[in-house]
Amino acid sequence: MHCFFNPRSIAVIGATPKTFKGGYSIIKNLILTFKGRLYPVNPQYAEIEGIPCFPSIADIPESIDLVILFIAAAMVPDTLEQCARKGVGGIMIESGGFAETDEKGKNVQEAISEFVKRTGIRVWGPNCMGLVDGIRGYVFSFTDPKVLPAFLLPGPVSLIVQSGMLSAGFVVDILSHGITGFSKVCSIGNKADINESDVLAYLLDDPDTRSVGLYLESFIDGRRFLDLCRSSDKPVIVLKGGKSSKGAQAAISHTASLAGNYRVASGALAQAGAYEAKDFKQLVDFCRTLALNPPRRGNSRGRIAVITFSGASGIVCSDFMEEQYLTVADLSEETKIRLGRLYPEWMPVANPVDIWPAIEQHSGTDLNIYNLAIEAVLDDPGVDAVIVHSFAGHSRIRLDLDEISRQSSSSGKPVFLWLLGNQEVVFQAQKKARDLGLLVFQELYRAVECLSILFQRPGTTPPLREKQAAPAGKSRQPSADVSSLLEKAEGPQDERISKSILHSFGIPIVEETLIRDLSQVEAAAAQLGFPVVMKGLQPGLVHKTEQGLVELNIGNLQAAQESFERLMNKMNGRGSVLLQKQIQGGAELILGAIRDPQFGPCVMIGIGGVLANLIADTVFAVAPLEREEALDAIGRLRTRQIFDGFRGAKPVDRNIIASLMIALGDVMIRYPRIREIDINPLLVSGDNAVAVDATVVLKQPDSNKG
Amino acid sequence: MHCFFNPRSIAVIGATPKTFKGGYSIIKNLILTFKGRLYPVNPQYAEIEGIPCFPSIADIPESIDLVILFIAAAMVPDTLEQCARKGVGGIMIESGGFAETDEKGKNVQEAISEFVKRTGIRVWGPNCMGLVDGIRGYVFSFTDPKVLPAFLLPGPVSLIVQSGMLSAGFVVDILSHGITGFSKVCSIGNKADINESDVLAYLLDDPDTRSVGLYLESFIDGRRFLDLCRSSDKPVIVLKGGKSSKGAQAAISHTASLAGNYRVASGALAQAGAYEAKDFKQLVDFCRTLALNPPRRGNSRGRIAVITFSGASGIVCSDFMEEQYLTVADLSEETKIRLGRLYPEWMPVANPVDIWPAIEQHSGTDLNIYNLAIEAVLDDPGVDAVIVHSFAGHSRIRLDLDEISRQSSSSGKPVFLWLLGNQEVVFQAQKKARDLGLLVFQELYRAVECLSILFQRPGTTPPLREKQAAPAGKSRQPSADVSSLLEKAEGPQDERISKSILHSFGIPIVEETLIRDLSQVEAAAAQLGFPVVMKGLQPGLVHKTEQGLVELNIGNLQAAQESFERLMNKMNGRGSVLLQKQIQGGAELILGAIRDPQFGPCVMIGIGGVLANLIADTVFAVAPLEREEALDAIGRLRTRQIFDGFRGAKPVDRNIIASLMIALGDVMIRYPRIREIDINPLLVSGDNAVAVDATVVLKQPDSNKG
Repeated sequence: MHCFFNPRSIAVIGATPKTFKGGYSIIKNLILTFKGRLYPVNPQYAEIEGIPCFPSIADIPESIDLVILFIAAAMVPDTLEQCARKGVGGIMIESGGFAETDEKGKNVQEAISEFVKRTGIRVWGPNCMGLVDGIRGYVFSFTDPKVLPAFLLPGPVSLIVQSGMLSAGFVVDILSHGITGFSKVCSIGNKADINESDVLAYLLDDPDTRSVGLYLESFIDGRRFLDLCRSSDKPVIVLKGGKSSKGAQAAISHTASLAGNYRVASGALAQAGAYEAKDFKQLVDFCRTLALNPPRRGNSRGRIAVITFSGASGIVCSDFMEEQYLTVADLSEETKIRLGRLYPEWMPVANPVDIWPAIEQHSGTDLNIYNLAIEAVLDDPGVDAVIVHSFAGHSRIRLDLDEISRQSSSSGKPVFLWLLGNQEVVFQAQKKARDLGLLVFQELYRAVECLSILFQRPGTTPPLREKQAAPAGKSRQPSADVSSLLEKAEGPQDERISKSILHSFGIPIVEETLIRDLSQVEAAAAQLGFPVVMKGLQPGLVHKTEQGLVELNIGNLQAAQESFERLMNKMNGRGSVLLQKQIQGGAELILGAIRDPQFGPCVMIGIGGVLANLIADTVFAVAPLEREEALDAIGRLRTRQIFDGFRGAKPVDRNIIASLMIALGDVMIRYPRIREIDINPLLVSGDNAVAVDATVVLKQPDSNKG
Repeated sequence: MHCFFNPRSIAVIGATPKTFKGGYSIIKNLILTFKGRLYPVNPQYAEIEGIPCFPSIADIPESIDLVILFIAAAMVPDTLEQCARKGVGGIMIESGGFAETDEKGKNVQEAISEFVKRTGIRVWGPNCMGLVDGIRGYVFSFTDPKVLPAFLLPGPVSLIVQSGMLSAGFVVDILSHGITGFSKVCSIGNKADINESDVLAYLLDDPDTRSVGLYLESFIDGRRFLDLCRSSDKPVIVLKGGKSSKGAQAAISHTASLAGNYRVASGALAQAGAYEAKDFKQLVDFCRTLALNPPRRGNSRGRIAVITFSGASGIVCSDFMEEQYLTVADLSEETKIRLGRLYPEWMPVANPVDIWPAIEQHSGTDLNIYNLAIEAVLDDPGVDAVIVHSFAGHSRIRLDLDEISRQSSSSGKPVFLWLLGNQEVVFQAQKKARDLGLLVFQELYRAVECLSILFQRPGTTPPLREKQAAPAGKSRQPSADVSSLLEKAEGPQDERISKSILHSFGIPIVEETLIRDLSQVEAAAAQLGFPVVMKGLQPGLVHKTEQGLVELNIGNLQAAQESFERLMNKMNGRGSVLLQKQIQGGAELILGAIRDPQFGPCVMIGIGGVLANLIADTVFAVAPLEREEALDAIGRLRTRQIFDGFRGAKPVDRNIIASLMIALGDVMIRYPRIREIDINPLLVSGDNAVAVDATVVLKQPDSNKG
């Protein structure tokens, strides 16, 4: 990849002197920014912008590290061959007209992939805006040469984007607003060869890059991407485009219907310790926050001191902190005494620290109350970070930014600034703060949100590839019956069969008996004990509740017999009835597994019951799972408090749930013919779990997709 | 109030030539902005800034509409008397040192209130930054005279704020960033007399004000505030500071514990048709959005066309729209044909409309593709509004803002702009758009959020005061026993008594029998039929579940007898056991009522069950309730879909729930000794509702708070 990021020589095929064309912008940007040797290639011109132009790449009298193509798609295959003959290092195709357009374009893109396989020469693009490097000051892009080169600035943030806008207009926005500089901005386009993981791997090793932000609509190789995130401490932040559930595949199980395009990706990213952003500028704000401040693991809730000039912004800031799982720090007595010395007598010291009365008290003196207050709270061992609110009036802000930068560095604690006021003054302060490595925000909520992510990184776990597969001895071997079923059966299996499959893998299932005749009810019920549950089973039918085929709380024999007849009537006599012990109490969960096209076998854990379906409180994780990962996933459920013995219930041992998640992931890996598993509900109480209903979906009859 | 907003003459008591003092800033701001007659008052000076200064207000040779005070608190009472003798119109006290400081300050503030009662002269403040009027160009504030007057600009938005920052530094921020101009900005400080409702009443009648935004930490008279919101079509947007639940009063019932400081206010505001904002700049964005665009009632989901230059921002915008309950409009065939004419052949037309290929196709021509595309989608009857994404490059944006403004006006449909790129160009475009009445946003999410509120205003209902109290004939009269209980009993009543009270008001309760002896179990259970529920009752004990005193699903006599003995043992033989029919299925709700210190009697409806406690899906509404309001409140539950026959369950008739909410509100109004009511659970299925457990809390023994 190095020839893309640090070439000594570049040839631009399709260079032109026509200023409104991309082939001009590329060469012009290179002239303005690239310090190596530059070769325009175009048979129509002898020189472009004063640089000699070559009729073809073969005519260039030296070796070429990087070729940038900006030519019609139809000309690309021949040109690639010329590049191969020349022995170039790498090829970046920036022009469009490939898979994003029509059938013809798709074919050309396939030819590119074939070329890469055959020659081993890496291709970046097509249909992309290439690379912008703020450290070396390079612009390898057809973005307007009158704009970006003038704003280019080094910084610790790198971006990988599946969108031209995000590497052009958006980067100009961020740079010209003085928000941050960049290390690399990589527009990867159609990913015919080089994809997000290739570039991520490079940037995770790049010493100039301290955090990587990605905008992606899809993952070419989800598992490799996760492995990369896990292999590095460098923060990775992803904005996933296309969260809408419309495109979800036709799902049989409940688990699959909850998966969609986005929920699996979201769970997998959290599992790998990556962060998520939801808007473009928020992505950059998260990137610059994490680039400049290592995440604070270990503290589950950051203890924050707020230095403000306004009671209102202190209060609203506290509201945001509560919402974002941060704590308003309890200041030590010593800190209170130090702050109290600055205050008028009537003013009690509290956090948020409203310093306006202190500023008024000392107006006309040389004391910088802001800096004194910041120092006092930074010295407090009960304070993990500080948010400072300030405003810009006529010509200056009241903050000594140099001093704050020193205070933050020497204490090792982040100091975030929320500035408002006169635009020009705020803008200048923001740029100065940026140069000092301080973070300035213009919306208070964003400041708190960014502080919050420092304290909330999910624990990272070892890369998938290094993980041990479950040792064979530990995994249960299914019975011959189940093995044969798993080889031959197709589609969704009924509750009884599904549970027998799961039981053979060690999943505990509810006590139950299948009955086909009224006369069997009495003995079966006597054996299980009332109250019981009765369910009508029909081949191929998955959603029994919706069909009225589940009857609960049957308290005596007569009621049981009536239920049996009612269920058989509903099924027109075809089918059978499953009689089960009614389980009392416990938390109702849903546990499932699917195969995701991007991330492979995944396990889902969720809170069950009708309500849970509405709030969709579920978390996906990529199999195989280690115990810690399973516990992490459980800990990301929004209503996880239900496990803690809420309202007098017995607390649930999360290890039991984790074990079942691990087992299900293991089963999915060992048996590729299993397409989906749905255990719904799984009732859990104390250290006891039991699958009450379940569906196993095997490879579909009419599909090769498995 | 008019003398505060449009005085002909102003006296400033405490005026001074010392430029670092508030008394200077006030007079300087008036010199710069006020066109009426101006009288500095200070015995130490003969003139200030070239204007004659008077030793006291009595010495001014003409009548005074408005006095602005900036003097030490201790001097205020005497000065007020001088003002009364002079016969001034109104008094604005901007200096601090009152109830916000110490006991002495509190006493002075009480003296101010007493003065107002005695003289009828209205007082604004103290401890406030007064008034800024963008239409008349007035600054009645001690904000820095070098800043605000230079930026002042008329606009349709008015603010009422309980914070100096929001009427000074914040207003400078909004104005200098070119976001919007203002009509009035009113800083109301300590509200010794004039409060948010007084100012709101004035602004709702002010023809220059088209929306009112408020920052409030408390409501002086919650019911009057709600009535004002309901009395006008003018949008009211509230940012409530202090949402944290820490300060909630010690609550007995579950309902009261859920109320806190914020949840009641939030429900009441929605009920009155007011909007909520959560951050400061978001408040202004909502205000300017609603000032320029009447809310679109009737359409539950706005159908939005997106015109973009980037596939990525189209996708992310669609994700946001789905999250914000907006619809990506289905474009008509005609619209697609019109757009198709602009496109290259290979490009299919879809919404979001990515027009970059069209712009490239026509580059070098005079066609403004943006305007053509905007016109095409505005002409589509299936489009309610448009979001346009654009970026600024070298020196201009590609949008003809004048034309877009005309297009939006003539179609009557909002066109929102998301602009990014070169800061200076974006800034100029934003200011031009502001002058044309177009809305520009710099974060995509905010643009979608603002568009969303246009389509989501809760239906407004008649003012509380105009509402009919329930006619006496319709209200159930309680039995003599219950009447006596309501007069004499105190504190929380046990389940059996609570339900008998509620039953007497027409609330349906579960069939049940109280038993004290093992021998009574058989007959009682036989009468109700198995399965049954048994609960241990002890005087004063409210949380039975947490004490293990509730046993469910008891299927037969032996189990019932065992339950009885177990419960009696747990209660050490003291207490009794309630035997109830076990209700099968149905949605589990919580219905309650409280008295809120700011809003009076309120009803709460919520989704019940253990999970619901964790997600706190509840809505409060102020009593008395009309049917439509009750249904509205039910419709604001996040998991309301549970009523729609989710997963094969019988759909619930929301009218049944609404009737019970109305009844509960009525009871709270008729019986002031009832402090809290908690029906938890209320089981609802089809058109049948039954209270399974309930607590009525009467006036507490040791409290006069009722």
